[in-house]
Amino acid sequence: MAAVRALVASRLLSASAFAPLHASTPRAPLHSSAPRPGARVALVLSGCGVYDGTELHEASAVLVHLSRGGAEVQIFAPDIPQMHVVDHTKGQPSESETRNVLTESARIARGKITNLARLSAANHDAAIFPGGFGAAKNLLCCIAPVLAARVLHGVEVTVGHEQEEGGKWPYAGTAEAIKALGAKHCVKGVTEAHVDQKNKVVTTPAFMCETELHHIHDGIGAMVKKVLELCGK
Amino acid sequence: MAAVRALVASRLLSASAFAPLHASTPRAPLHSSAPRPGARVALVLSGCGVYDGTELHEASAVLVHLSRGGAEVQIFAPDIPQMHVVDHTKGQPSESETRNVLTESARIARGKITNLARLSAANHDAAIFPGGFGAAKNLLCCIAPVLAARVLHGVEVTVGHEQEEGGKWPYAGTAEAIKALGAKHCVKGVTEAHVDQKNKVVTTPAFMCETELHHIHDGIGAMVKKVLELCGK
Repeated sequence: MAAVRALVASRLLSASAFAPLHASTPRAPLHSSAPRPGARVALVLSGCGVYDGTELHEASAVLVHLSRGGAEVQIFAPDIPQMHVVDHTKGQPSESETRNVLTESARIARGKITNLARLSAANHDAAIFPGGFGAAKNLLCCIAPVLAARVLHGVEVTVGHEQEEGGKWPYAGTAEAIKALGAKHCVKGVTEAHVDQKNKVVTTPAFMCETELHHIHDGIGAMVKKVLELCGK
Repeated sequence: MAAVRALVASRLLSASAFAPLHASTPRAPLHSSAPRPGARVALVLSGCGVYDGTELHEASAVLVHLSRGGAEVQIFAPDIPQMHVVDHTKGQPSESETRNVLTESARIARGKITNLARLSAANHDAAIFPGGFGAAKNLLCCIAPVLAARVLHGVEVTVGHEQEEGGKWPYAGTAEAIKALGAKHCVKGVTEAHVDQKNKVVTTPAFMCETELHHIHDGIGAMVKKVLELCGK
């Protein structure tokens, strides 16, 4: 279980996306001149801040690129207590403090957020999970079975490179954990995304790479582009 | 004072930047082949979340564009209690909760943050203040005199358009407050930035406009580009 957890954690530390969530539903335009509808994307958050919630720069980049791609986005988070509240100046959990994942995620969503319990796959073409430790700490209890099932069926993912390369890929060891579980790890650069066409899973290394923020932003842009392509929008 | 406060708040709700912070210091390269140093930019945060801190998408966009522009960024926030802790799902302040501005800002900074008390103008070519209510609520006590002094000396700024235009510019009235204080309001679109060449102040409307996130991201990109130009980097 620890290994599964590490695997799910490592996949979620990088940004990942599933598309489509369901068999495609016919949605013929009422008029041939009607604008083509945008992809309907669920963004699933796990708090607000890299060490106990969603990595907020990843979430923001996802939202910028979805906006540019014309997607309709609905933001979700579970209405549960955070596993930890981490003081980000120290990297240490606070002993006495408790916070709610939905309430903290609302800081990224600017208040427009829905309880994850109300997410219905039928309403969305794709779901995107930004990284951050909160994805592992706070989402495991509700979505890990879905994630793990996909991973255990030989899914292809990337968390970047497989060697540390002098500190550029500090979490490179997670690629081995992924392979140990029977999934396939695909080496990619930080500005790239990997598409598992069979499972409709798109991943990008994001903050798995120690690099400049605009490269991470661009890698997330590549991931969102692939997701929207898979949605056929 | 209420008017000054409203004005400072409105300026800070949009992203704004001052450059340069000091008379230019000669920094000749040691070798003619040395790479040109990047602009040294201070990013001043006021918490993490639009309703009680820094608008985090604005901060993230500033960091992406500074990264792309090759700037050296140092992030600061004051080590003081937040004026409010707002539940972002409700928009209401919590009565019982207290948080520290520096600690919460560290969520945006991924832990790499410095007490604002240690900011020295001599070390930076420019300072950038992302928006969010926290800028007004939490920064007034320390930087309002600087901001107000600039504003009161006829500074030119933009908060976007001066009419609501059916809800597109919900805070349009703040332009009047700016003018009432003797500053000049310059009408700009959300993807534009205004440069006050005399005072070296650059502003962009950002979330003053009710629009899609990528337009706000691009407007902040325009602002950062102008700041780096003013820095001569």
